[in-house]
Amino acid sequence: MVELITLYTAKICPYAQRAEIALEEAGLPYKRYEIDLSNKPEWYAPKVNPASKVPAIAYGGPDVAPETPSPESAKIAESLVLLEFIADLSASTKPLLPADPVARARARFFIEAVLSKFIGAFYGALTRGEDPAPVMDAIDILQGLLPEEGYVVGEWSIADAAVTPFLARALVSFKHDIGAYDEGAGKKLYDVQLCTPMQNVSSRPSFKDTWHEDVIIDVYSQRFNELRIQRLAQK
Amino acid sequence: MVELITLYTAKICPYAQRAEIALEEAGLPYKRYEIDLSNKPEWYAPKVNPASKVPAIAYGGPDVAPETPSPESAKIAESLVLLEFIADLSASTKPLLPADPVARARARFFIEAVLSKFIGAFYGALTRGEDPAPVMDAIDILQGLLPEEGYVVGEWSIADAAVTPFLARALVSFKHDIGAYDEGAGKKLYDVQLCTPMQNVSSRPSFKDTWHEDVIIDVYSQRFNELRIQRLAQK
Repeated sequence: MVELITLYTAKICPYAQRAEIALEEAGLPYKRYEIDLSNKPEWYAPKVNPASKVPAIAYGGPDVAPETPSPESAKIAESLVLLEFIADLSASTKPLLPADPVARARARFFIEAVLSKFIGAFYGALTRGEDPAPVMDAIDILQGLLPEEGYVVGEWSIADAAVTPFLARALVSFKHDIGAYDEGAGKKLYDVQLCTPMQNVSSRPSFKDTWHEDVIIDVYSQRFNELRIQRLAQK
Repeated sequence: MVELITLYTAKICPYAQRAEIALEEAGLPYKRYEIDLSNKPEWYAPKVNPASKVPAIAYGGPDVAPETPSPESAKIAESLVLLEFIADLSASTKPLLPADPVARARARFFIEAVLSKFIGAFYGALTRGEDPAPVMDAIDILQGLLPEEGYVVGEWSIADAAVTPFLARALVSFKHDIGAYDEGAGKKLYDVQLCTPMQNVSSRPSFKDTWHEDVIIDVYSQRFNELRIQRLAQK
Protein backbone atom coordinates (compact mmCIF):
# COMPACT_ATOMS: atom_id res chain seq x y z
CA MET A 1 0.00 0.00 0.00
CA VAL A 2 1.30 3.42 -0.91
CA GLU A 3 1.62 5.68 2.14
CA LEU A 4 1.28 9.45 2.56
CA ILE A 5 3.47 11.54 0.26
CA THR A 6 4.49 15.15 0.84
CA LEU A 7 6.53 16.69 -1.96
CA TYR A 8 8.74 19.65 -1.15
CA THR A 9 9.23 21.45 -4.43
CA ALA A 10 9.67 24.82 -6.17
CA LYS A 11 8.11 26.04 -9.38
CA ILE A 12 11.39 27.40 -10.66
CA CYS A 13 13.38 24.19 -10.22
CA PRO A 14 13.68 21.66 -13.10
CA TYR A 15 14.84 18.91 -10.74
CA ALA A 16 11.72 19.41 -8.66
CA GLN A 17 9.46 19.42 -11.70
CA ARG A 18 10.78 15.97 -12.60
CA ALA A 19 9.31 14.57 -9.38
CA GLU A 20 6.04 16.46 -9.85
CA ILE A 21 5.60 15.13 -13.37
CA ALA A 22 6.27 11.56 -12.22
CA LEU A 23 3.77 11.86 -9.35
CA GLU A 24 1.14 13.23 -11.73
CA GLU A 25 1.77 10.42 -14.22
CA ALA A 26 1.68 7.83 -11.44
CA GLY A 27 -1.66 9.20 -10.29
CA LEU A 28 -0.47 9.07 -6.69
CA PRO A 29 -2.07 11.57 -4.30
CA TYR A 30 0.45 13.92 -2.67
CA LYS A 31 0.66 17.16 -0.77
CA ARG A 32 2.61 19.79 -2.67
CA TYR A 33 4.60 22.23 -0.57
CA GLU A 34 6.38 25.14 -2.26
CA ILE A 35 9.79 25.99 -0.82
CA ASP A 36 10.95 29.55 -1.42
CA LEU A 37 14.51 28.80 -2.55
CA SER A 38 15.62 32.36 -1.92
CA ASN A 39 14.33 32.24 1.64
CA LYS A 40 14.14 28.65 2.83
CA PRO A 41 12.22 27.90 5.99
CA GLU A 42 14.60 27.14 8.83
CA TRP A 43 13.03 23.76 9.56
CA TYR A 44 13.63 22.49 6.03
CA ALA A 45 17.28 21.41 6.21
CA PRO A 46 17.18 19.86 9.68
CA LYS A 47 13.82 18.14 9.29
CA VAL A 48 13.57 17.26 5.59
CA ASN A 49 16.73 17.52 3.49
CA PRO A 50 20.14 18.26 5.05
CA ALA A 51 21.34 19.35 1.58
CA SER A 52 18.59 22.00 1.73
CA LYS A 53 17.58 21.36 -1.89
CA VAL A 54 14.35 20.48 -3.64
CA PRO A 55 12.84 18.11 -4.52
CA ALA A 56 12.44 15.97 -1.42
CA ILE A 57 9.66 13.65 -0.35
CA ALA A 58 8.45 12.83 3.15
CA TYR A 59 6.96 9.36 2.85
CA GLY A 60 4.75 7.60 5.37
CA GLY A 61 4.22 8.43 9.03
CA PRO A 62 1.26 10.35 10.45
CA ASP A 63 -0.79 12.89 8.51
CA VAL A 64 0.89 16.14 9.54
CA ALA A 65 1.23 19.62 8.07
CA PRO A 66 4.18 19.88 5.64
CA GLU A 67 5.67 22.63 7.84
CA THR A 68 5.94 20.21 10.76
CA PRO A 69 7.34 17.02 9.20
CA SER A 70 7.15 13.95 11.39
CA PRO A 71 10.35 12.11 12.34
CA GLU A 72 8.36 8.96 11.52
CA SER A 73 8.26 9.63 7.78
CA ALA A 74 11.13 8.59 5.52
CA LYS A 75 12.84 11.58 3.90
CA ILE A 76 14.04 11.00 0.35
CA ALA A 77 15.96 13.46 -1.82
CA GLU A 78 17.65 13.72 -5.24
CA SER A 79 15.47 13.97 -8.32
CA LEU A 80 16.66 10.79 -10.04
CA VAL A 81 16.29 8.79 -6.84
CA LEU A 82 12.75 10.14 -6.58
CA LEU A 83 11.90 9.23 -10.17
CA GLU A 84 12.86 5.61 -9.46
CA PHE A 85 11.08 5.74 -6.09
CA ILE A 86 7.86 6.98 -7.64
CA ALA A 87 8.18 4.34 -10.38
CA ASP A 88 8.63 1.68 -7.68
CA LEU A 89 5.57 2.92 -5.79
CA SER A 90 3.37 2.81 -8.86
CA ALA A 91 4.91 -0.27 -10.52
CA SER A 92 1.78 -2.40 -10.10
CA THR A 93 -0.81 0.31 -10.75
CA LYS A 94 0.74 2.62 -13.38
CA PRO A 95 4.19 1.53 -14.61
CA LEU A 96 6.52 4.45 -15.28
CA LEU A 97 9.22 2.21 -16.73
CA PRO A 98 8.79 -0.53 -19.34
CA ALA A 99 8.89 -4.16 -18.19
CA ASP A 100 11.66 -5.25 -20.57
CA PRO A 101 15.11 -4.94 -18.92
CA VAL A 102 16.73 -3.68 -22.13
CA ALA A 103 14.13 -0.95 -22.56
CA ARG A 104 14.55 0.01 -18.89
CA ALA A 105 18.29 0.27 -19.50
CA ARG A 106 17.66 2.53 -22.50
CA ALA A 107 15.50 4.79 -20.37
CA ARG A 108 18.21 5.01 -17.72
CA PHE A 109 20.94 5.55 -20.30
CA PHE A 110 18.94 8.47 -21.67
CA ILE A 111 18.54 9.91 -18.17
CA GLU A 112 22.30 9.62 -17.67
CA ALA A 113 22.86 11.46 -20.96
CA VAL A 114 20.56 14.29 -19.86
CA LEU A 115 22.75 14.67 -16.80
CA SER A 116 26.16 14.28 -18.43
CA LYS A 117 25.53 16.03 -21.76
CA PHE A 118 22.70 18.51 -21.41
CA ILE A 119 22.43 19.95 -17.92
CA GLY A 120 26.04 21.11 -17.63
CA ALA A 121 25.93 22.78 -21.05
CA PHE A 122 22.65 24.53 -20.30
CA TYR A 123 23.59 25.71 -16.80
CA GLY A 124 26.98 26.81 -18.08
CA ALA A 125 25.25 29.12 -20.54
CA LEU A 126 22.40 30.20 -18.28
CA THR A 127 24.31 30.81 -15.07
CA ARG A 128 27.97 31.25 -16.04
CA GLY A 129 27.66 33.00 -19.37
CA GLU A 130 29.21 30.28 -21.49
CA ASP A 131 28.38 30.03 -25.18
CA PRO A 132 24.94 28.38 -25.44
CA ALA A 133 25.74 26.65 -28.77
CA PRO A 134 26.87 23.40 -27.03
CA VAL A 135 23.33 23.09 -25.65
CA MET A 136 22.22 22.43 -29.20
CA ASP A 137 24.95 19.81 -29.63
CA ALA A 138 23.64 18.15 -26.47
CA ILE A 139 20.09 18.24 -27.83
CA ASP A 140 21.40 16.58 -31.00
CA ILE A 141 22.97 13.82 -28.91
CA LEU A 142 19.72 13.26 -27.03
CA GLN A 143 17.78 13.40 -30.27
CA GLY A 144 20.05 10.66 -31.62
CA LEU A 145 18.95 8.39 -28.78
CA LEU A 146 15.26 8.78 -29.54
CA PRO A 147 12.99 6.56 -31.59
CA GLU A 148 11.34 8.11 -34.62
CA GLU A 149 8.01 8.33 -32.85
CA GLY A 150 6.68 8.40 -29.37
CA TYR A 151 8.50 8.91 -26.12
CA VAL A 152 12.09 8.14 -25.14
CA VAL A 153 11.51 4.39 -24.94
CA GLY A 154 8.20 4.22 -26.81
CA GLU A 155 5.69 4.50 -24.01
CA TRP A 156 6.00 7.45 -21.63
CA SER A 157 8.57 6.77 -18.91
CA ILE A 158 10.56 8.52 -16.20
CA ALA A 159 13.13 9.28 -18.93
CA ASP A 160 10.62 11.79 -20.33
CA ALA A 161 10.12 13.27 -16.87
CA ALA A 162 13.90 13.61 -16.54
CA VAL A 163 14.47 15.61 -19.71
CA THR A 164 11.40 17.76 -20.22
CA PRO A 165 11.83 20.28 -17.38
CA PHE A 166 15.34 21.08 -18.59
CA LEU A 167 14.49 21.28 -22.28
CA ALA A 168 11.53 23.49 -21.53
CA ARG A 169 13.64 25.87 -19.47
CA ALA A 170 16.33 25.99 -22.14
CA LEU A 171 13.73 26.93 -24.73
CA VAL A 172 12.30 29.68 -22.50
CA SER A 173 15.78 31.00 -21.89
CA PHE A 174 16.63 31.08 -25.60
CA LYS A 175 13.26 32.35 -26.77
CA HIS A 176 13.42 35.34 -24.42
CA ASP A 177 17.21 35.60 -24.56
CA ILE A 178 17.38 35.37 -20.77
CA GLY A 179 20.67 34.16 -19.35
CA ALA A 180 24.18 35.14 -18.34
CA TYR A 181 25.34 34.35 -21.89
CA ASP A 182 26.02 37.13 -24.40
CA GLU A 183 23.00 39.16 -25.42
CA GLY A 184 21.42 37.73 -28.57
CA ALA A 185 23.13 34.34 -28.30
CA GLY A 186 19.98 32.68 -27.02
CA LYS A 187 17.62 34.11 -29.62
CA LYS A 188 19.99 32.99 -32.36
CA LEU A 189 19.56 29.40 -31.22
CA TYR A 190 15.83 29.48 -30.80
CA ASP A 191 14.96 28.62 -34.39
CA VAL A 192 15.92 25.00 -33.99
CA GLN A 193 14.27 21.68 -34.30
CA LEU A 194 12.78 20.75 -30.99
CA CYS A 195 13.38 17.32 -29.54
CA THR A 196 10.68 14.75 -30.19
CA PRO A 197 9.97 14.15 -26.50
CA MET A 198 9.55 17.85 -25.94
CA GLN A 199 6.85 18.07 -28.57
CA ASN A 200 4.98 15.14 -27.11
CA VAL A 201 5.52 15.72 -23.46
CA SER A 202 4.79 19.41 -23.28
CA SER A 203 1.25 18.65 -24.34
CA ARG A 204 0.66 16.18 -21.50
CA PRO A 205 -1.31 17.33 -18.46
CA SER A 206 1.55 16.12 -16.22
CA PHE A 207 3.75 18.74 -17.84
CA LYS A 208 1.22 21.55 -18.18
CA ASP A 209 0.02 21.22 -14.59
CA THR A 210 3.56 21.47 -13.23
CA TRP A 211 4.90 24.15 -15.58
CA HIS A 212 4.94 27.78 -14.46
CA GLU A 213 6.42 29.75 -17.35
CA ASP A 214 5.65 33.14 -15.84
CA VAL A 215 7.58 32.29 -12.68
CA ILE A 216 10.52 30.98 -14.67
CA ILE A 217 10.71 34.04 -16.93
CA ASP A 218 10.44 36.31 -13.93
CA VAL A 219 13.08 34.61 -11.78
CA TYR A 220 15.46 33.89 -14.66
CA SER A 221 15.24 37.52 -15.85
CA GLN A 222 16.04 38.88 -12.43
CA ARG A 223 18.81 36.48 -11.63
CA PHE A 224 20.62 35.73 -14.86
CA ASN A 225 20.34 38.96 -16.80
CA GLU A 226 21.88 40.55 -13.74
CA LEU A 227 24.74 38.05 -14.03
CA ARG A 228 25.11 38.95 -17.70
CA ILE A 229 25.52 42.59 -16.76
CA GLN A 230 28.05 41.75 -14.04
CA ARG A 231 29.97 39.57 -16.46
CA LEU A 232 30.12 42.33 -19.03
CA ALA A 233 31.25 44.80 -16.39
CA GLN A 234 34.16 42.50 -15.52
CA LYS A 235 35.35 42.20 -19.10
CA MET B 1 14.63 -15.85 -19.59
CA VAL B 2 18.02 -14.22 -19.30
CA GLU B 3 19.87 -14.13 -22.62
CA LEU B 4 23.59 -14.26 -23.45
CA ILE B 5 25.73 -11.65 -21.72
CA THR B 6 29.15 -10.46 -22.88
CA LEU B 7 30.82 -7.97 -20.56
CA TYR B 8 33.45 -5.66 -22.01
CA THR B 9 35.57 -4.64 -19.07
CA ALA B 10 39.07 -3.73 -17.84
CA LYS B 11 40.80 -4.79 -14.64
CA ILE B 12 42.01 -1.27 -13.96
CA CYS B 13 38.62 0.39 -14.20
CA PRO B 14 36.43 0.87 -11.10
CA TYR B 15 33.33 1.53 -13.20
CA ALA B 16 33.83 -1.79 -14.94
CA GLN B 17 34.41 -3.64 -11.68
CA ARG B 18 30.99 -2.44 -10.51
CA ALA B 19 29.36 -4.43 -13.31
CA GLU B 20 31.55 -7.47 -12.72
CA ILE B 21 30.69 -7.54 -9.03
CA ALA B 22 26.98 -7.29 -9.78
CA LEU B 23 27.14 -10.10 -12.35
CA GLU B 24 29.01 -12.30 -9.87
CA GLU B 25 26.47 -11.57 -7.13
CA ALA B 26 23.58 -12.19 -9.51
CA GLY B 27 25.08 -15.55 -10.43
CA LEU B 28 24.45 -14.83 -14.09
CA PRO B 29 26.77 -16.54 -16.59
CA TYR B 30 28.68 -14.11 -18.79
CA LYS B 31 31.66 -13.90 -21.09
CA ARG B 32 34.31 -11.55 -19.79
CA TYR B 33 36.30 -9.66 -22.41
CA GLU B 34 39.22 -7.48 -21.33
CA ILE B 35 39.59 -4.22 -23.25
CA ASP B 36 43.09 -2.74 -23.26
CA LEU B 37 42.19 0.85 -22.47
CA SER B 38 45.54 2.14 -23.68
CA ASN B 39 45.12 0.39 -27.02
CA LYS B 40 41.43 -0.20 -27.71
CA PRO B 41 40.48 -2.57 -30.52
CA GLU B 42 39.19 -0.61 -33.47
CA TRP B 43 35.89 -2.51 -33.58
CA TYR B 44 35.00 -1.54 -30.01
CA ALA B 45 33.59 1.96 -30.50
CA PRO B 46 31.65 1.31 -33.72
CA LYS B 47 30.30 -2.08 -32.68
CA VAL B 48 29.88 -1.91 -28.91
CA ASN B 49 30.12 1.49 -27.24
CA PRO B 50 30.38 4.73 -29.27
CA ALA B 51 31.76 6.43 -26.15
CA SER B 52 34.59 3.87 -26.30
CA LYS B 53 34.47 3.30 -22.55
CA VAL B 54 34.09 0.25 -20.34
CA PRO B 55 31.97 -1.29 -18.98
CA ALA B 56 29.54 -2.25 -21.70
CA ILE B 57 27.35 -5.30 -22.13
CA ALA B 58 26.24 -7.00 -25.32
CA TYR B 59 22.97 -8.68 -24.40
CA GLY B 60 21.10 -11.32 -26.40
CA GLY B 61 21.55 -12.24 -30.03
CA PRO B 62 23.52 -15.22 -31.33
CA ASP B 63 26.46 -16.81 -29.50
CA VAL B 64 29.39 -15.06 -31.14
CA ALA B 65 32.99 -14.29 -30.19
CA PRO B 66 33.29 -11.03 -28.18
CA GLU B 67 35.59 -9.64 -30.87
CA THR B 68 32.83 -9.91 -33.48
CA PRO B 69 29.76 -8.57 -31.70
CA SER B 70 26.47 -9.23 -33.45
CA PRO B 71 24.25 -6.34 -34.51
CA GLU B 72 21.42 -8.42 -33.07
CA SER B 73 22.54 -8.00 -29.47
CA ALA B 74 21.54 -4.94 -27.45
CA LYS B 75 24.55 -2.84 -26.44
CA ILE B 76 24.27 -1.24 -23.02
CA ALA B 77 26.78 1.11 -21.41
CA GLU B 78 27.30 3.25 -18.27
CA SER B 79 28.10 1.49 -15.02
CA LEU B 80 25.06 2.66 -13.06
CA VAL B 81 22.75 1.76 -15.92
CA LEU B 82 24.35 -1.69 -15.93
CA LEU B 83 23.94 -2.13 -12.17
CA GLU B 84 20.20 -1.52 -12.52
CA PHE B 85 20.08 -3.71 -15.64
CA ILE B 86 21.76 -6.63 -13.89
CA ALA B 87 19.45 -6.14 -10.89
CA ASP B 88 16.47 -6.21 -13.26
CA LEU B 89 17.73 -9.41 -14.93
CA SER B 90 18.16 -11.20 -11.62
CA ALA B 91 15.19 -9.68 -9.78
CA SER B 92 13.29 -12.96 -9.54
CA THR B 93 16.28 -15.26 -8.94
CA LYS B 94 18.73 -13.25 -6.84
CA PRO B 95 17.51 -9.75 -5.89
CA LEU B 96 20.28 -7.15 -5.87
CA LEU B 97 18.00 -4.45 -4.49
CA PRO B 98 15.62 -4.73 -1.52
CA ALA B 99 11.89 -5.05 -2.20
CA ASP B 100 10.86 -2.07 -0.03
CA PRO B 101 10.68 1.15 -2.12
CA VAL B 102 12.15 3.26 0.69
CA ALA B 103 15.13 0.92 1.07
CA ARG B 104 15.60 0.94 -2.70
CA ALA B 105 15.62 4.73 -2.59
CA ARG B 106 18.25 4.65 0.16
CA ALA B 107 20.45 2.41 -1.97
CA ARG B 108 20.11 4.77 -4.94
CA PHE B 109 20.71 7.84 -2.78
CA PHE B 110 23.94 6.24 -1.56
CA ILE B 111 24.98 5.50 -5.16
CA GLU B 112 24.31 9.13 -6.06
CA ALA B 113 26.47 10.25 -3.10
CA VAL B 114 29.34 8.02 -4.27
CA LEU B 115 29.17 9.84 -7.60
CA SER B 116 28.68 13.38 -6.35
CA LYS B 117 30.87 13.30 -3.22
CA PHE B 118 33.50 10.63 -3.54
CA ILE B 119 34.55 10.03 -7.14
CA GLY B 120 35.37 13.63 -8.01
CA ALA B 121 37.43 14.08 -4.84
CA PHE B 122 39.34 10.86 -5.41
CA TYR B 123 40.03 11.42 -9.11
CA GLY B 124 40.98 15.03 -8.40
CA ALA B 125 43.70 13.79 -6.07
CA LEU B 126 44.74 10.77 -8.10
CA THR B 127 44.78 12.30 -11.56
CA ARG B 128 45.03 16.08 -11.09
CA GLY B 129 47.19 16.31 -8.01
CA GLU B 130 44.60 17.92 -5.76
CA ASP B 131 44.87 17.54 -1.99
CA PRO B 132 43.55 14.06 -1.13
CA ALA B 133 42.19 15.14 2.28
CA PRO B 134 38.66 15.82 0.85
CA VAL B 135 38.50 12.13 -0.04
CA MET B 136 38.35 11.43 3.66
CA ASP B 137 35.59 14.00 4.11
CA ALA B 138 33.68 12.18 1.37
CA ILE B 139 34.22 8.85 3.12
CA ASP B 140 32.86 10.43 6.30
CA ILE B 141 29.74 11.53 4.40
CA LEU B 142 29.24 8.04 3.01
CA GLN B 143 29.92 6.54 6.42
CA GLY B 144 27.19 8.77 7.83
CA LEU B 145 24.70 7.17 5.44
CA LEU B 146 25.48 3.63 6.57
CA PRO B 147 23.71 1.51 9.14
CA GLU B 148 25.72 0.36 12.15
CA GLU B 149 26.04 -3.14 10.77
CA GLY B 150 25.83 -4.92 7.47
CA TYR B 151 25.80 -3.48 4.00
CA VAL B 152 24.62 -0.11 2.70
CA VAL B 153 20.93 -0.98 3.06
CA GLY B 154 21.27 -4.02 5.30
CA GLU B 155 21.43 -6.85 2.81
CA TRP B 156 24.03 -6.65 0.05
CA SER B 157 22.81 -4.50 -2.85
CA ILE B 158 24.07 -2.75 -5.96
CA ALA B 159 24.91 0.20 -3.69
CA ASP B 160 27.77 -1.92 -2.34
CA ALA B 161 28.88 -2.77 -5.87
CA ALA B 162 28.85 0.95 -6.68
CA VAL B 163 31.14 2.08 -3.88
CA THR B 164 33.61 -0.75 -3.27
CA PRO B 165 35.72 -0.51 -6.46
CA PHE B 166 36.37 3.18 -5.79
CA LEU B 167 37.06 2.84 -2.09
CA ALA B 168 39.41 -0.05 -2.75
CA ARG B 169 41.35 1.94 -5.35
CA ALA B 170 41.54 4.96 -3.04
CA LEU B 171 43.00 2.79 -0.31
CA VAL B 172 45.56 1.27 -2.68
CA SER B 173 46.51 4.74 -3.86
CA PHE B 174 46.94 6.06 -0.33
CA LYS B 175 48.64 2.96 1.07
CA HIS B 176 51.30 3.03 -1.64
CA ASP B 177 51.26 6.82 -2.00
CA ILE B 178 50.57 6.47 -5.72
CA GLY B 179 48.93 9.48 -7.34
CA ALA B 180 49.46 12.88 -8.87
CA TYR B 181 49.00 14.43 -5.39
CA ASP B 182 51.99 15.62 -3.38
CA GLU B 183 54.38 12.90 -2.25
CA GLY B 184 53.50 11.65 1.21
CA ALA B 185 49.95 13.05 1.15
CA GLY B 186 48.42 9.64 0.48
CA LYS B 187 50.35 7.75 3.16
CA LYS B 188 49.36 10.38 5.71
CA LEU B 189 45.71 9.56 5.08
CA TYR B 190 46.05 5.82 5.10
CA ASP B 191 45.68 5.37 8.84
CA VAL B 192 41.97 6.03 8.81
CA GLN B 193 38.85 4.20 9.70
CA LEU B 194 37.66 2.22 6.76
CA CYS B 195 34.07 2.38 5.71
CA THR B 196 31.84 -0.40 7.00
CA PRO B 197 30.88 -1.63 3.52
CA MET B 198 34.51 -1.84 2.55
CA GLN B 199 35.27 -4.15 5.44
CA ASN B 200 32.36 -6.41 4.59
CA VAL B 201 32.46 -6.30 0.86
CA SER B 202 36.16 -6.75 0.30
CA SER B 203 35.85 -10.19 1.86
CA ARG B 204 33.15 -11.33 -0.57
CA PRO B 205 34.06 -13.58 -3.48
CA SER B 206 32.36 -11.14 -5.86
CA PHE B 207 34.95 -8.54 -4.87
CA LYS B 208 37.99 -10.79 -4.58
CA ASP B 209 37.36 -12.48 -7.93
CA THR B 210 37.12 -9.15 -9.72
CA TRP B 211 39.94 -7.31 -7.91
CA HIS B 212 43.40 -7.16 -9.48
CA GLU B 213 45.54 -5.19 -7.07
CA ASP B 214 48.79 -5.90 -8.89
CA VAL B 215 47.41 -4.46 -12.13
CA ILE B 216 46.10 -1.38 -10.35
CA ILE B 217 49.37 -0.71 -8.53
CA ASP B 218 51.28 -1.19 -11.74
CA VAL B 219 49.13 1.03 -13.96
CA TYR B 220 48.56 3.71 -11.31
CA SER B 221 52.29 3.90 -10.57
CA GLN B 222 53.19 4.34 -14.21
CA ARG B 223 50.47 6.81 -15.02
CA PHE B 224 49.96 8.95 -11.96
CA ASN B 225 53.39 9.16 -10.43
CA GLU B 226 54.47 10.40 -13.83
CA LEU B 227 51.78 13.09 -13.58
CA ARG B 228 53.07 13.99 -10.10
CA ILE B 229 56.54 14.56 -11.55
CA GLN B 230 55.16 16.64 -14.43
CA ARG B 231 53.10 18.68 -12.01
CA LEU B 232 56.14 19.37 -9.83
CA ALA B 233 58.18 20.32 -12.88
CA GLN B 234 55.55 22.92 -13.82
CA LYS B 235 55.59 24.55 -10.39
